[in-house]
Order: sequence, then C-alpha cells, then structure tokens
Amino acid sequence: MSEILVVGSLAYDGISTPAGRVDRALGGSANYFSLAASLFAPVRVVGVVGEDYGKEDEELLRSRRVDLSGLERVKGKTFFWEGKYEGDLNEAITLKTELNVFEHFNPNLPEKFRDSEFVFLANIAPELQMQVLDQVRAPKFVGMDTMNFWIGSKKEALLKILSRVDVVLINETEAEMLTGAANAISAAPKITAMGPKAVVIKRGEYGFAFYSKTEGFCILPAMPIPGVVDPTGAGDTFAGGFFGHLAKLGRVPTAADMREACISGTLLASFTIQDFSVRALAKVTSDDIREREREYLKVIGRA
Amino acid sequence: MSEILVVGSLAYDGISTPAGRVDRALGGSANYFSLAASLFAPVRVVGVVGEDYGKEDEELLRSRRVDLSGLERVKGKTFFWEGKYEGDLNEAITLKTELNVFEHFNPNLPEKFRDSEFVFLANIAPELQMQVLDQVRAPKFVGMDTMNFWIGSKKEALLKILSRVDVVLINETEAEMLTGAANAISAAPKITAMGPKAVVIKRGEYGFAFYSKTEGFCILPAMPIPGVVDPTGAGDTFAGGFFGHLAKLGRVPTAADMREACISGTLLASFTIQDFSVRALAKVTSDDIREREREYLKVIGRA
Repeated sequence: MSEILVVGSLAYDGISTPAGRVDRALGGSANYFSLAASLFAPVRVVGVVGEDYGKEDEELLRSRRVDLSGLERVKGKTFFWEGKYEGDLNEAITLKTELNVFEHFNPNLPEKFRDSEFVFLANIAPELQMQVLDQVRAPKFVGMDTMNFWIGSKKEALLKILSRVDVVLINETEAEMLTGAANAISAAPKITAMGPKAVVIKRGEYGFAFYSKTEGFCILPAMPIPGVVDPTGAGDTFAGGFFGHLAKLGRVPTAADMREACISGTLLASFTIQDFSVRALAKVTSDDIREREREYLKVIGRA
Repeated sequence: MSEILVVGSLAYDGISTPAGRVDRALGGSANYFSLAASLFAPVRVVGVVGEDYGKEDEELLRSRRVDLSGLERVKGKTFFWEGKYEGDLNEAITLKTELNVFEHFNPNLPEKFRDSEFVFLANIAPELQMQVLDQVRAPKFVGMDTMNFWIGSKKEALLKILSRVDVVLINETEAEMLTGAANAISAAPKITAMGPKAVVIKRGEYGFAFYSKTEGFCILPAMPIPGVVDPTGAGDTFAGGFFGHLAKLGRVPTAADMREACISGTLLASFTIQDFSVRALAKVTSDDIREREREYLKVIGRA
C-alpha cells in the first residue's frame, strides 16, 4: 500500500439541480478525491482554505485519517463556486467562481509529503500542478485532471505538465477541446501522444473510455442510478476511487490495473451523485462498495 | 433456428456526413435489418418498392437467401430520405422525406409468411405495424422500433402496438420523448410498464442500455470505431444482429439471451458505420464478426 498525495481545491459550493439546492455546501476536488481515496489508502492533502472554513469540515477528512499537514489556512475567504444543472445533468452551468484565497495559492509541500509515490494533480492551474510535482522526489505514478478554462488560457503550461504525467483524467468535451477531435475515440490516442501512458475520458452518465498505449480501449458504462440528485464532484470522486485502488495495490500500475481502477472510480462516483455535496460519499462503507460492485458486474454482464 | 419476418422500408438515401456524401444509395430499415439478420438466420421481408428500385438491390438480399415474396413492386417511386450529420454524428438532420409508394402501403402477408415465429416491426406507422402483426398466427417473439414522428402524431396507436410486443428497440432521445423521463435509466422501466418484457435503448456512440423486467439493466458501450463514415442504418443493423442472434437460438428468448443478442447487434452496427449505405455491411462475413467479437470482449473487459 502506498500513500497518495493530492493537490486541489477545498471549497464551498452553491448548487442548484432539478432535485433541489444547497447554498454553501462542502465541495472542492480535494475533498471529493480524499473522501473516496481514503477508503482504500492513506491520503495527504495539499491545499488552502480561508478563515471561514469550518472546523467540522476539516474533521471530516481527519476522521478518515487524511493527513492535512499540507493544508494552509490563510486570511480571507475559502474558494466558492456556484453552479446549476438542468435537464439531463450532464453539464454544469457555472454562475459564479470566487477564487478568494486560491488566487495567491503557492503550494509548498511539508518535508514528509515529498516522498509520496502516488500523486494526483486535481483541476487547478497547470503552473501550480507543476510546482507541486516538482517538489515530489521520486513519484511512482502521477495523474492529473484539467478543464476547458486552462485548455483555453494556459495551453502551453498545460502541455508541459501533460508530458510529465502517467495518466490524465478528463471530461469528454474537454478531451475534444484539447485535441480538436470529434469524439472520445479519436481524442484518446491524441492525448497519449502528448505524453501520458493512458487517459481516462469521463463521460458522465455514459461512464468512461479508458485508453492505454499498450492495451487500447476499455469502455464501460456508469452505474445506472435512477434518481441522480447532484452530479457535482463525480469526476473528482472517480479520480479518488481510481487512485485509491491503485495505491492500495502499491505497484507501478499496469494497463490492466488501471482498467480495474476505473471500475472502482465508477462505483465511488455512483454514491456521490445520490445526494448533494459530499453527503452520500461521506457515509460510504467498504460493505457498500462491495455490494455496489456486485450490482455493477451484473450490469456489465460479467456476473 | 427460426425464421424472422421483418416489415420495414426499402429505400434510397441521400446522405451527407463530414466524411463525404452519397446521392441515391441503398437504404431503408428492412435492408439494413435483413443484411444483418441473414448472417444468423433465414429472413422474410414485407415491404414495398417503386418502379425505380434496382434489380441489383433486390439481388443483394436474394444473395443472402432473404425471402422476398412479401415484397411488392408498385407504380411510382421508391421511398426516398435525405439527411445530413454534423459534428459528433449522433443526430441525423432530416432534409427531405418522400414517402412515394410507401404512402399507400397496405401490407398483406403471403400465406407462407404467416407462421413466422420471430417478428420485427421496423420503424413504420404504428397502424401498419399492427396490421402486419395481426396477420402472423402465433408469433413466439415480437420486437418493434419507432421514432419521434409517431410518438408525436400517433401516440394512441403506438401505445396499442407497444402493449403487444416483447421488446422495443428505441433511440435514447425517443425513449425520453415517449416517457417524459430525463434519461435512459428512468425511461427504461416506464417503457416496460407499457407492456414489453424488455427494452433496448440505443445510445449511438455510447452503445446500449438493455432493461428487462426480470433482470434489470445490462449496459454496454458501442465498439470504438475511430473513423465513422456514416451512422445511417446503425440502429436497424443493431436490430438485425439482435434478432438474428435470437432466431438462431430458436427458443423463446430469456433476458440473458437478449443481453447477449445486444452484443451481436452492437458488433454488426459497428460495420455499418464504417462506410456509406450498406456497403460495409454487405461485405461482412462470419469470420469478420468473430474477429470483432474478440476485440469487443477485450474492450468491455471480459477477455
């Protein structure tokens, strides 16, 4: 078993979906990722919060034995995102993004984090992703996420960090935007040509398309969930389940390892979307995961 | 092995896609269906064509031992459809529909067709689907397709025929339109509540969601095809592979039979989209199918 270092946002979200709304709920990629990954392996968080960040929200991660010694608390307000979902819930419409303390975030890893073997660079500015990776001495396996905003505004820095990671986890529309391809099947090999050994294209309700240079495609659906409440954080939860699965194995991941890790990501994400914020994810147990895995293997015709 | 009766269109299509265009190419649901299904089991066609319908186009089906004694040739022109695809190829934009000889189609089954055990009612007016089904003495297994036009204009007749079939094959957006559901997962049980034992929701590049009352969901992706040329007929080809698979088994299909039949449908459809019209499908051999099945089982992590 290896430790996982994650850098990403700890945030408050205002979210409106056809199922209802929350005004200031716990969110942020590092929170979703850590809650999922810590079900499999130890997690270390690098991030920044403001004075308003709730002690109980820190406690939630501590209760999962997440190491928060890389979490800075600084003057000002915590990152805030407001968004809404309509119709089929596949696309979030951003209404407000307040970077707040994230604007001057200058990640500096505690000495004891620098030996981390598994590193996940969640969706933050590519220069910050690079700054974190530069501080890790000998990473065994590095993954990253990104988004349309960085593809549009920081392409050069993005390509630089892309060339240094083992796997990219990215949304389908963003994979198309990054490569100019018309669909995920054409985009995937263009992304691995930029450096990574493999790419996971996240397709929302349609699941994922995993592609590795050595093994080609593995494509599987999302878990069918009849009453989706809030898709926020599903991608970060997927990444947490994916990395947790691999760090638990501990070895340098093979393509087959990553393929199975995508299933763990899929299972974990299926909990997140069943309630607002991290509510459902925070309550998930290993038994819940095993039960859902049984259901999922039936859905994909493996059982 | 049982015989399959199909009623549907034999047509000429004008199609424009990002890969090019054809002006008057062989098309129609009954053609795609029959070419696919006849690779597995004997097929009987009920349909109508005009004086302009090419002898060589009839010959293509005859070369697959398709029984055309239910094909009428009448005065006038063959059904013509013109459409185009843009961007991700998921949605056809209809530019022209000329019903021609189809307008007064009054299907009358040859006596020897009336003992058919497997019946597929392709996407035609629901009253015509009913008229055909009424002429079959003791069908063992009946499937149907439909489209937005009939859902909008002939809802009552559509619900009547729906209550008499075993399985519905339908596009995702049309499943949502028929049920008012926001997605395929919510739509599927609403469709089986209308009568059918099972439903196959066709999701284009994302594959299919199969749902049966007894076994719940089986969801799998489409075969990843990098250079899709023309998606026209993919759904009818899927239906042909699906029915061919089941008629070859011959027994009253179980949910597990239908699940595996969906994979045959997926494999066959993956050939159709690789060229315009029926060009690729017409050349498919059993060896091609076996080879593609090996690739597909790898993609879905079963091999």
